[in-house]
Amino acid sequence: MRRDELAEAQADADPAGYRALARAPGARHVEVLDQRALPHASVTVRLGDAGTAARAIREMWVRGAPLIGAVGACGLAMALDADPGDAALARAHAMLDATRPTAVNLRWALDRVRQRAAALPEAARADAAWREADAIVAEDVAINRSLGGHGLVLLERIAARKQGPVDVMTHCNAGALATCGWGTATAPIFLAHAAGLPLHVWVSETRPRLQGANLTAWELAQRGVPHTVVVDGACAALMRGGRVDVVFVGTDRVARNGDVCNKIGTYGKALAAADNAVPFYVALPSPTLDPALPDGDAIPIEARSPDEVLGVTGREAHGGSVRVAIAPEGARGYNPAFDVTPARLVTGLLTERGLAAASEAGLAALFPERFA
Amino acid sequence: MRRDELAEAQADADPAGYRALARAPGARHVEVLDQRALPHASVTVRLGDAGTAARAIREMWVRGAPLIGAVGACGLAMALDADPGDAALARAHAMLDATRPTAVNLRWALDRVRQRAAALPEAARADAAWREADAIVAEDVAINRSLGGHGLVLLERIAARKQGPVDVMTHCNAGALATCGWGTATAPIFLAHAAGLPLHVWVSETRPRLQGANLTAWELAQRGVPHTVVVDGACAALMRGGRVDVVFVGTDRVARNGDVCNKIGTYGKALAAADNAVPFYVALPSPTLDPALPDGDAIPIEARSPDEVLGVTGREAHGGSVRVAIAPEGARGYNPAFDVTPARLVTGLLTERGLAAASEAGLAALFPERFA
Repeated sequence: MRRDELAEAQADADPAGYRALARAPGARHVEVLDQRALPHASVTVRLGDAGTAARAIREMWVRGAPLIGAVGACGLAMALDADPGDAALARAHAMLDATRPTAVNLRWALDRVRQRAAALPEAARADAAWREADAIVAEDVAINRSLGGHGLVLLERIAARKQGPVDVMTHCNAGALATCGWGTATAPIFLAHAAGLPLHVWVSETRPRLQGANLTAWELAQRGVPHTVVVDGACAALMRGGRVDVVFVGTDRVARNGDVCNKIGTYGKALAAADNAVPFYVALPSPTLDPALPDGDAIPIEARSPDEVLGVTGREAHGGSVRVAIAPEGARGYNPAFDVTPARLVTGLLTERGLAAASEAGLAALFPERFA
Repeated sequence: MRRDELAEAQADADPAGYRALARAPGARHVEVLDQRALPHASVTVRLGDAGTAARAIREMWVRGAPLIGAVGACGLAMALDADPGDAALARAHAMLDATRPTAVNLRWALDRVRQRAAALPEAARADAAWREADAIVAEDVAINRSLGGHGLVLLERIAARKQGPVDVMTHCNAGALATCGWGTATAPIFLAHAAGLPLHVWVSETRPRLQGANLTAWELAQRGVPHTVVVDGACAALMRGGRVDVVFVGTDRVARNGDVCNKIGTYGKALAAADNAVPFYVALPSPTLDPALPDGDAIPIEARSPDEVLGVTGREAHGGSVRVAIAPEGARGYNPAFDVTPARLVTGLLTERGLAAASEAGLAALFPERFA
C-alpha cells in the first residue's frame, strides 16, 4: 500500500477525524493522541525517538494491543534512523519489548521490523523499517475493517429479529483509539451505525484506568452513536435484565486453545453473558493470536501500580486533570491489568477471515498457516 | 435490654471505638457518622428531627440496610416527640419510608415503631417509640454477633485445612458502619481476627460510591485486619487464580425463595464464585428477610443519579473532598444501585440462627414463624 492510500484508508476508518497514530508523508516521526488527556482534552504529541516511543507505551499515552504494536514498530524504525547497527537494533528491540508484557502484538511487530531490517545492509535498514511499520499500520486498518464486516452481519441478524435498537455491550476501549483505525470490538458498531442500523452501546467504565468512560464514550460521542456509561459491577445485572443483545470485546492475546486475555473485568462479563445466554464475541485481529502458548494460563499478566486502584484521575469542575485518593491513607492495593476468559465462555472469535470457534480446531481452520 | 447494657454491647462490637449510630442516655436525638466524609475524615452529625433523619438516609450520610432501619426508627420517635398525633405519625412514616426503596429493613423498622406507638395514648407514644427504636438497635447488635459466630465456624474450618491466612472476599460495606454493631458480612471476619485466626480480606472498591474502598478498607484498618483493595472487575480473576477461599457479602433484602438483593456487582461476584467453586455466603440478619416477596425479581431496585457513575468523589493531595468528572461532558449514565443474585448461586444464608440453604425450605426451617 502506498502512503497516500494508507492515509485514505485511515481517513475512511475515522470519519470523526481523530486518529490514534499518524505519520506525515516522509516524516521520520509519528504523532499520537495522548490518551491520558481524553475525554477532557485532545492533545497530540510527537514521538521522535525510540526512547520517547517506549515511554509513550509504558506510561500509556498510547494503549491497545494493535496500537502499541504499531507504535513499537515505528519506535524501532526511529532507533534505526539514529543508529542502524546490530547492537543498537538489539538494544532498541529489547527496550521497546520491555514496556508492556501482555499484548502479543508488541513483540510480533518488533520482531517483524527487526527481521526485515536485520537482513539488509545498515544503510538500507531504517527505510526498510519504516516501510515495514507502514505495512503494519495499513494491515491493521484493513484487518479491522474486515473483521468489522463480519461483525456487522451478526448485528444485522439481531436487528432483524428485534424491535428497537440493538443493545451492544463492550468493555474497556477496543476502539479506533486502540488501533490504527476502526478499532476491533468497535468496528462492527461503527459500520452498523454508518449503515443506519439502530444501535445503543453499554459502555462499562473499566476501572482502574477508566478506558470505557474516558475513551470509548468519547469515541461513540464523536461518531454520534447512542450510548450509556455504567459501572463495571452493573454489567451482569444489565444482562440478567435482558438489556444486552450481544457483547463485543477486544483482546490482548489469544492462546492456541482459544482462551482470551483482555482487560481486567472481561472474564466476569463473559460469565454473566453465559449465565444469560447473551452472545459473547471477541474481536481478534490475527496478529493478536499467539498459537505458541497452549492456553490462557501461560499468558503473562501485567500488574500495574496499586496507585491506579487507590485513586482516580478525572477533571475538576472548571479545572484541569486531578487525581483524587479514594482509599484510606496507607491502604494496600493490587492491580492486575488483564484477566483470562476461558474459551468455553466465548461464543466466537471475530477475525478478519470470519468467525472462528474459540478452540484450536476453530482457529486452525481459519489460520492453517499459523498452526502448521 | 437496658440502655447501659446496649451501650456495652455496642462497645463490645466496636473495639476500635467508632459507631455508626449512638444515642446518649435520655437523649431525644442520635449521633451518626457522616459516612460521606470517610475515610478521609471522621465527622459526627446530630440527627434531631425526623426531616434530618430522612435526609441522612436519602443522601446516604448513613447507609446499609440494618442501619437505615435503625435510623428510620429513631427518626419516627423524633417525629412523635414533635407531634404524637395520628396524622403526624402517618406523615413521618411515609416520609421516612420514601427515602430509599430497596432495603426491607427500613419499612420493617418503621412499621414496628408505628405499631407500638399507635396502640398507645398520644402522651405515651414518643417514649414507647424510643424504647422500640432502642430495641431494634440492641437486637441488631445481638443478631450480628450471633450470625458472626456461625460464620466464624466456617472460617475456622477453612483455616484448619489451609496453610497461611484465610483469604476472604467481600463487597461494598456490610460492616459495622452498615449496622448498629459488628456488621453483617464483617462479623465473622472481626470475630475471627479477634480470635487470632490469620485472615486477609480482598476489598472490592464498589463503584460508583466506593463503599468498599472508602468504608470497608477503613474499618479493617481501624481494627488491624490485613486487607487489599481491588477494582470490582478484578474479583473474578482473583477467584479464578485461587486467591479467594470464601466470599461473604451482605444483603438489602432476601426474597422467599432465597434470591438475594445486594449492592450492584454482587451477582457478578456470585457467578465468579460458582465458576471457581468458591463458597459464596450471604450474611442475612432476619429483619432483612422478606417472605412476602416470592422471588428477587419482585424486589424494587433503586436507580440513583447518573452523576455517581459519571464522576468520582475523593480527596485531593493536601486538600479536601472533591468530585472529578470521568466521562465526556454530556455523557449519559445509568446507575442501578442493587442487583439480584439468584438463590442457585448462593452457598448459604448466614443468619443469627445458623446457616440456611438459600431456598424457601431452607429459610422456613430456621424461621418457621415467618413462613406460617
